[in-house]
Amino acid sequence: MKNDIQKESLAIHKKLRGKIEITPKAKLTKKSLGLFYTPGVGAVSTHIAEHPEAAMKMTLRGNTVAVVSDGSAVLGLGNIGPLAALPVMEGKAMLFKTLAGVDAFPIVLNTQDPDAIVEIVKALEPSFGAINLEDIAAPQCFEIERRLREALKIPVMHDDQHGTAMVVLSGLINALLVRGSKKNEVRVVVNGAGAAGTAIVQLLLMYGFEHIVMVDSQGAIHNGRKGMSDEKKHLATITNRFCHIDEEHVLCTKGDLRAALFGADVFIGVSKGGILKEDMVRAMNPDPIIFALANPVPEIYPDEAKKAGALVVATGRSDFPNQINNALGFPGIFRGALDHGVTEITDTMLVRAAEKLAGIIKKPTPTMIIPSPFDKSVVKAVSSAIR
Amino acid sequence: MKNDIQKESLAIHKKLRGKIEITPKAKLTKKSLGLFYTPGVGAVSTHIAEHPEAAMKMTLRGNTVAVVSDGSAVLGLGNIGPLAALPVMEGKAMLFKTLAGVDAFPIVLNTQDPDAIVEIVKALEPSFGAINLEDIAAPQCFEIERRLREALKIPVMHDDQHGTAMVVLSGLINALLVRGSKKNEVRVVVNGAGAAGTAIVQLLLMYGFEHIVMVDSQGAIHNGRKGMSDEKKHLATITNRFCHIDEEHVLCTKGDLRAALFGADVFIGVSKGGILKEDMVRAMNPDPIIFALANPVPEIYPDEAKKAGALVVATGRSDFPNQINNALGFPGIFRGALDHGVTEITDTMLVRAAEKLAGIIKKPTPTMIIPSPFDKSVVKAVSSAIR
Repeated sequence: MKNDIQKESLAIHKKLRGKIEITPKAKLTKKSLGLFYTPGVGAVSTHIAEHPEAAMKMTLRGNTVAVVSDGSAVLGLGNIGPLAALPVMEGKAMLFKTLAGVDAFPIVLNTQDPDAIVEIVKALEPSFGAINLEDIAAPQCFEIERRLREALKIPVMHDDQHGTAMVVLSGLINALLVRGSKKNEVRVVVNGAGAAGTAIVQLLLMYGFEHIVMVDSQGAIHNGRKGMSDEKKHLATITNRFCHIDEEHVLCTKGDLRAALFGADVFIGVSKGGILKEDMVRAMNPDPIIFALANPVPEIYPDEAKKAGALVVATGRSDFPNQINNALGFPGIFRGALDHGVTEITDTMLVRAAEKLAGIIKKPTPTMIIPSPFDKSVVKAVSSAIR
Repeated sequence: MKNDIQKESLAIHKKLRGKIEITPKAKLTKKSLGLFYTPGVGAVSTHIAEHPEAAMKMTLRGNTVAVVSDGSAVLGLGNIGPLAALPVMEGKAMLFKTLAGVDAFPIVLNTQDPDAIVEIVKALEPSFGAINLEDIAAPQCFEIERRLREALKIPVMHDDQHGTAMVVLSGLINALLVRGSKKNEVRVVVNGAGAAGTAIVQLLLMYGFEHIVMVDSQGAIHNGRKGMSDEKKHLATITNRFCHIDEEHVLCTKGDLRAALFGADVFIGVSKGGILKEDMVRAMNPDPIIFALANPVPEIYPDEAKKAGALVVATGRSDFPNQINNALGFPGIFRGALDHGVTEITDTMLVRAAEKLAGIIKKPTPTMIIPSPFDKSVVKAVSSAIR
């Protein structure tokens, strides 16, 4: 049994046969054909051959982003492959254009080999002004992004990591204002140590949060845990830091999510639906902040979290207040990168973007910590920070 | 000193900053966002994961062609690289949409290694419904196309070869009607043995022309010539065939273009401007047919060819009668391939397309052997043949 929104979505996709189209920006006539195509275009090609930087100003490249996925970690659906990822990437291209005037084209790749993906995207560089990596599974997403950032002259950003992190930080800035808490004093638990969780932790640390514990399916990540991947070993050195200094210290966190949440102020879930229970919220410090971002089913529903004492609750869903939606990030981030000729999107820029985005809400309240993606001031605020 | 059309083309490219854009086919609102993107799109992804063939009907794939170039043989400019090729590929995308409603996206690759190009295009297959290879130099274009045709389930066509060949054959069909000649009786000289020349010869042979001699910068290609590449050795076995049987036969053609043209009925130039002289036309049989297709300067100008006795003259230019323009081919060829779910564009289909295209001109005359690309019946005629 499919629910209504699923049925309706299938129907409209069948009707449209593609959600985006590629259209000329000028009318093609017998006269203009000779300007846009041979023979006139030869002068443009010759000019670009002599001045390669002119391609950003005289072709689609200067306003065009590739949305690149291998289909290995699509929405909550997992490794469904490139073809099945395509409608998601197309939807993202709709958002890019509607919200920020960015031309975006979905590139779904018939390979999940990191070496191959790196070589392919390197070869695609001349067609695009920036690369949005999307829905690529951890840990290979880290290596792919790192190698592409080193190799390309245009900006590369894995949105599931950094776009998400920027929006989460932005919401958290306002949630702390609502609660009257300081970033260097609160204890934060991040549940989920994949692409998003890792990037959130890195950006929060950079912003000045000090007490962060990450929890994955094996429990809290700490320096003494056995059998961790290289990525998690690194995370253990930058989070849960009192374990580091003194294995017996009271703030050292071991054990499962329930144990980790004891005495915490903030829960950030980028994990899976339903795993945060009311009694776990009650074990947190008073008036906790709950970001339950799993989609479509959040780690805890807002009414349950409120009942258990939560002060601010955010989810990834549009049908509850405080939607933490990556559509608040990527359109403005890439708009700014293209407009300002940025060659790398740094964490410093993303922190500034999070502050600008938070600043749109003049008086944050428990049910209003973040604007809607359709708020016209969002792209302006975010893009102004990416320079 | 740049001429007017070059100046004007540079100016309009600077103004537009890209000639194509990527636009949503439906309005994105708070409501529709949930259908086109998460959470609704998850149902479409799941459906495609279970039924991969549905991607052609529910995503942009079913109407989208990649225009792929490595920038190694762009217009008459040669190996100017991918960035400089981009405005040409974008112009082609304008034509695709304007003439045939096909969405086309320019993919210019930062590599000219055939192995790499094959691997990249294989990986790109899930995003596209067909592949238009463009402006890739011979001989590597032959290998790249062959390997991609074998590897991909979607149609792959190198337009410089087969699109050009289809349009040339179409024009020739009507030129022979004007002259009252039979395809199996006329002697044809094709000057230029690159991508276009090779494909023209193959299609003409398939259609039933029997007497064809190819000429390259070293003179006539024949079985006894030393130092030929594998491609040219093959061409020597299918053209200039009397040399094959009997080295002393009167029709055996050796020597330069001037020698080859003695007693020929048709000249097809896909070579370079100005190399066909009036006295060479005079050495041909009476009322010769001259296709001088080099751009922007034809092998001979129409007025000179006429003065030397030519009956029908065609060029690649829009400012003379009988423009042999690949815009008469590729829009309809790919429109037909996409509409009819063709997995391979065969020479049989292209011959049929050439006949259909020629049939648009009800009464061919020396100055009217081929329609304009803006004639609405062109795409309909051509696309109907690609099935």
